Amino acid sequence: MELITRRIKRDGHVLNGNMLLVDSFLNHQIDMPLMREVGRAFASRFQGRGVTRVMTVESSGIAPAGMAALEMGVPLVVFKKRVSRIANGSVYQTNVQSYTKNTRYEMTVAKRFLPAGERILFIDDFLAAGEAAAGACKLIEEAGSAVEGIGIVIEKTFQPGRRRVDDMGYEVFSLARIRSMSADGIEFMED
Amino acid sequence: MELITRRIKRDGHVLNGNMLLVDSFLNHQIDMPLMREVGRAFASRFQGRGVTRVMTVESSGIAPAGMAALEMGVPLVVFKKRVSRIANGSVYQTNVQSYTKNTRYEMTVAKRFLPAGERILFIDDFLAAGEAAAGACKLIEEAGSAVEGIGIVIEKTFQPGRRRVDDMGYEVFSLARIRSMSADGIEFMED
Repeated sequence: MELITRRIKRDGHVLNGNMLLVDSFLNHQIDMPLMREVGRAFASRFQGRGVTRVMTVESSGIAPAGMAALEMGVPLVVFKKRVSRIANGSVYQTNVQSYTKNTRYEMTVAKRFLPAGERILFIDDFLAAGEAAAGACKLIEEAGSAVEGIGIVIEKTFQPGRRRVDDMGYEVFSLARIRSMSADGIEFMED
Repeated sequence: MELITRRIKRDGHVLNGNMLLVDSFLNHQIDMPLMREVGRAFASRFQGRGVTRVMTVESSGIAPAGMAALEMGVPLVVFKKRVSRIANGSVYQTNVQSYTKNTRYEMTVAKRFLPAGERILFIDDFLAAGEAAAGACKLIEEAGSAVEGIGIVIEKTFQPGRRRVDDMGYEVFSLARIRSMSADGIEFMED
């Protein structure tokens, strides 16, 4: 998506070789008109597929996923990050490693917001190691629902996440795919 | 706002006397068309006031604040909740108590997203003890910017937060004001 790649080129900063700072438009300061376009792009790509809800992980996924849910006319459900392992039977929960923040968390969702038989579009701001996407898809299938697709704003194609979710058989649609990056620049995949 | 009070009456659940569970439309499963109306209500109330950015706290404030920012045509800036006290001079940070989660966190924003001379509308999902709102306003003023107003989706008027921000001189606009609540029902302020 031209809008995203152009914005990354203009405002993104590469830190330590594999961290991409996009906090001026995606996850700290948020450009909502851009998020509306992002939502429209996801909705357009997955239209006609019977998606019944959009899911994401707090908190950076909320803006792009919310705009997609609004565009598609379906509810947004947000996986919560909990520090504790205490579950009480009313939630689906799986342990996820966050490499960016160097922590682990319990990705959690109330069972009543993830019933069986749903067709889910999972949306996140980044796909890097693929931990969040793989954890979300695992919980969705555990609930008896289907992962209709995965929508990503920025995919770091040089990290293992894309390959990982491809190998799990999921359809991934990334608005920007970064083949490589360094302090010298960012190279995108053409597709 | 009729839409919100009606929804609270229909879908809200009172827990332990002072917890209001609205996770089916506001902060776990999110009704985005409702958030669009919420955003429009805030935009309408504060129009013509020269607001230059909307701010909120992650993660439940993002959907309503994002829709307000979109409606008003200004950037959204999200205060982050950090566990560490490590600041490096490039951020504004203040310690905030979360009574709901019984934890403390460092409310943090990069200085480059909160420059001096801005006119800020702070939006949050709840106003209860007023810790988040007071902390946000403190940081905004520390940055040399002005708090143009505070927009709240659900105010628990029986808790000290509203009085606290009123006493600080801020203008508060709450879409639903709960005078009292118990397992037997929820009573709203009429205003």
